[in-house]
Amino acid sequence: MVTQTFEEISPADFFYRNRDIAGFTNPSRAIFASIRELVENSLDAAEYVMIPPDVYVRLSYVGEASPESAIYKLRVMDNGSGIPPQHIPSAFGQVLFGSKYKLKQTRGTFGLGGTMSVLYGQITTHQPAFIASSTGISKIYMYKIMIDIQKNRPLILDRKIILNKERWRGTVIEYSLEGDYIRAMPKILEYLKQTALVNPYANITFVDPRGRLYKFMRATTKMPPAPQETLPHPYGVDVETLQRLIRFTRCNTMQEFMKTHFHRVGELTASKFLTFAEIPASKSPKKLKREEIVRLVQNMKRFKEFLPPDASCLSPLGEELLRTGILKELKPEFTAVRQRKPSTYSGHPFIVEVAIAYGGNIPQKGDFILYRFANRIPLLYDEASDVSFRIMKGINWRRYKISPDMPIAILVHICSTKVPYKTVGKEFIADRPEVKREILNGMREVARDLQHFLSRQEHVERERKRLGVFSKYLPKIAQFATKLAGRQEPPDIKKLLDKVKTIEENE
Amino acid sequence: MVTQTFEEISPADFFYRNRDIAGFTNPSRAIFASIRELVENSLDAAEYVMIPPDVYVRLSYVGEASPESAIYKLRVMDNGSGIPPQHIPSAFGQVLFGSKYKLKQTRGTFGLGGTMSVLYGQITTHQPAFIASSTGISKIYMYKIMIDIQKNRPLILDRKIILNKERWRGTVIEYSLEGDYIRAMPKILEYLKQTALVNPYANITFVDPRGRLYKFMRATTKMPPAPQETLPHPYGVDVETLQRLIRFTRCNTMQEFMKTHFHRVGELTASKFLTFAEIPASKSPKKLKREEIVRLVQNMKRFKEFLPPDASCLSPLGEELLRTGILKELKPEFTAVRQRKPSTYSGHPFIVEVAIAYGGNIPQKGDFILYRFANRIPLLYDEASDVSFRIMKGINWRRYKISPDMPIAILVHICSTKVPYKTVGKEFIADRPEVKREILNGMREVARDLQHFLSRQEHVERERKRLGVFSKYLPKIAQFATKLAGRQEPPDIKKLLDKVKTIEENE
Repeated sequence: MVTQTFEEISPADFFYRNRDIAGFTNPSRAIFASIRELVENSLDAAEYVMIPPDVYVRLSYVGEASPESAIYKLRVMDNGSGIPPQHIPSAFGQVLFGSKYKLKQTRGTFGLGGTMSVLYGQITTHQPAFIASSTGISKIYMYKIMIDIQKNRPLILDRKIILNKERWRGTVIEYSLEGDYIRAMPKILEYLKQTALVNPYANITFVDPRGRLYKFMRATTKMPPAPQETLPHPYGVDVETLQRLIRFTRCNTMQEFMKTHFHRVGELTASKFLTFAEIPASKSPKKLKREEIVRLVQNMKRFKEFLPPDASCLSPLGEELLRTGILKELKPEFTAVRQRKPSTYSGHPFIVEVAIAYGGNIPQKGDFILYRFANRIPLLYDEASDVSFRIMKGINWRRYKISPDMPIAILVHICSTKVPYKTVGKEFIADRPEVKREILNGMREVARDLQHFLSRQEHVERERKRLGVFSKYLPKIAQFATKLAGRQEPPDIKKLLDKVKTIEENE
Repeated sequence: MVTQTFEEISPADFFYRNRDIAGFTNPSRAIFASIRELVENSLDAAEYVMIPPDVYVRLSYVGEASPESAIYKLRVMDNGSGIPPQHIPSAFGQVLFGSKYKLKQTRGTFGLGGTMSVLYGQITTHQPAFIASSTGISKIYMYKIMIDIQKNRPLILDRKIILNKERWRGTVIEYSLEGDYIRAMPKILEYLKQTALVNPYANITFVDPRGRLYKFMRATTKMPPAPQETLPHPYGVDVETLQRLIRFTRCNTMQEFMKTHFHRVGELTASKFLTFAEIPASKSPKKLKREEIVRLVQNMKRFKEFLPPDASCLSPLGEELLRTGILKELKPEFTAVRQRKPSTYSGHPFIVEVAIAYGGNIPQKGDFILYRFANRIPLLYDEASDVSFRIMKGINWRRYKISPDMPIAILVHICSTKVPYKTVGKEFIADRPEVKREILNGMREVARDLQHFLSRQEHVERERKRLGVFSKYLPKIAQFATKLAGRQEPPDIKKLLDKVKTIEENE
């Protein structure tokens, strides 16, 4: 009798074997993924404590590995919240351990990135990772760790505690990895530049293997309000979530339960809903039978009077900051920025911000340049699969007298408690109908803004020409008229010219 | 002092929160994903014991859930290898537990599918799953389970053992789930049809919620040889893999170690390599220092004399079976099938098989219809992101006198020990250069075959017309000639016509 053999693998092992899925596809993508995951953690950490982020990245050459790749040391330092000492080893040495498992808008989504970076370094160089961190207390904790991949546990090789005299707060991580920097370089620099654009309050410094320094300086210290953790919305709840809420709730009545654990459910809504669902308001949640739980979830989807998710937990950039970032990094002649009203998909609130930038330093590339962002991180891969790209291609731009050979960049930023990424590698956004609608309408709005600007420009140009004609010929006409009239002094034409200018300016 | 809160989640919890990534995006995709995962497990199980698969799928309507979805009961039964009784609960109740973690060509890749199906059913209906299985022994084991998602463990609610008088072997699973069958139906039927095409030795039966029966009958009992488990190839090895091999090896010398644990490494290659890597052949693997392990891996990538991975472990369909499947399901006028020679990417062997089908029942759709397969499963989503689609779009078909308005279908099948899927949902294949090259050349070969067929067809058509002209006018010419010559009997023109026909057939 032939039977298949069964075994269990750890999550670390799963992502080790399938690291393509997390974006660590080849030596060039892996260097990019490592840097981006750590930079995003650093930005999240600084924003958590609401201070303008200072992120320092250094990639140093260590030695050759193969014809296409080399060994590098990667060091990322930030001034963020720091990691509580007891969690430092697991934060980087255990997969599926992290701070990203709340219902909140963060850059990191899957709680994988930091550990995947260390894991990739380990499997290519067999070197440990060094982490130092402090939450601003009197001590700095320094760890030297590796990952036991089969057990999904950190191996602590060394630990030091030093005095934190200056009460530094932040995290430093340094480890070795094999990568193809030469091929990755353009993408890494583009990533840092776009990150600086969409986080204009951040200082980002990068020292590359040749010792070249790239500094992306902040243009403002103004930051958007921090994202807030939020409660689940009834529309997005399933049986498992409901069961967990029931398991740990301290509420004794369904009325209290609905008000306490769900987003925007107040006294009135709770009692209306419970009537609709035919569940007594005074019943204890822990006494619900299985069929009642299932019916409750179905009724939550059917009940029409829940207030829609509000986006107060979200933290979009805002039109001013987005404009600041665009001016800083793209230096266009004209920018239009629109923030759409909040919307929702599957019970998750989201906000779309769209911008269009024209002229100035924007190159003419035969087609629009599309910048995609989600929760303030740039998305650089798989453009053709992304919802924003498809929408951009589907719009009839000629309607707005805009054509692809103009120097135009379009920027789309989506923020949400749950960005609908298609992949763990956060390469592109899936096609959700509600999201599509907002992006489409946002693009149309900024397209109209650009159309007005261009037609005003045209108009100004025409007027300038007209004024030019007047300035050229009016003196001559005045002269001839003087002669004809037999006068000596030509009239004062300056007043006339001023009058023409005024007419133009008032149009 | 504000610090972030950290927590750990189980793999089941991870895929529960991110089930989009596994293909369970919405009620319509989820029904599709559930059926496909279970059907693929069934086909793998039958092929494991080398018997033609009989797979039975029944989807029954239970009740309404919401305006867009309903509750269904899904039952999948097969005649495969069965699951050893002690593993049944974990096979369906634990994520990252399964039989797919070998280096072998299988349909299932991530060891997720079966459990994800049960998990999705559970979170939408809160109902347990029923599984019955036997490996052909004297007993059948029946379990009623649910998943403890936070602990990633099965909860066994009931267990029964019954006598297996007929020594049945196989697995049955039945559970409830919420889904949108109406929207999913075309994709499910297309999936079953394409599965029947690429597995022409399988019987697939589907009973839909309306009681309609869809039977895809096998056209042959001939099966390709079963895929074999294989050893890793030196080119694809990293430090972690090497360490694990070292940890459990029983070899006492590096020479033995290289020969035993690696693909196609014999006595001579092993000793040449160890000389190249400057490691004594007699050294014990367990005595290697960390730096030596790292250098060993680098040297494995540099050493040019390893034999390339051979594809004997792979099990492509073969030109005959692929043709059988195409004729069965597509009924074309002409088919050309080519199997490319084995190739490798990142140390993994793969074989590409390409086919083109023309005319007959193939509809004219304004563009070619592309069928994509990997390890004998159809890929139905994200066509535009798939490597095969991009290559097909990039070929200049007019060179082969083929145009998109012809009724043409192109089929691409890739088999490998590790299919380079971009996503856990197995929707499309990533852009690997070696894979691209094989698909491109395969498409060119079948394009040339079709070109020859079409030009022969054209030729035949011309000859038919010519013969038609002769048949029409020769009798008349004969009559006139007879009159002119003053004769009574017209000559026998049949011989002439036959001669013309013969000339045509010989061309």
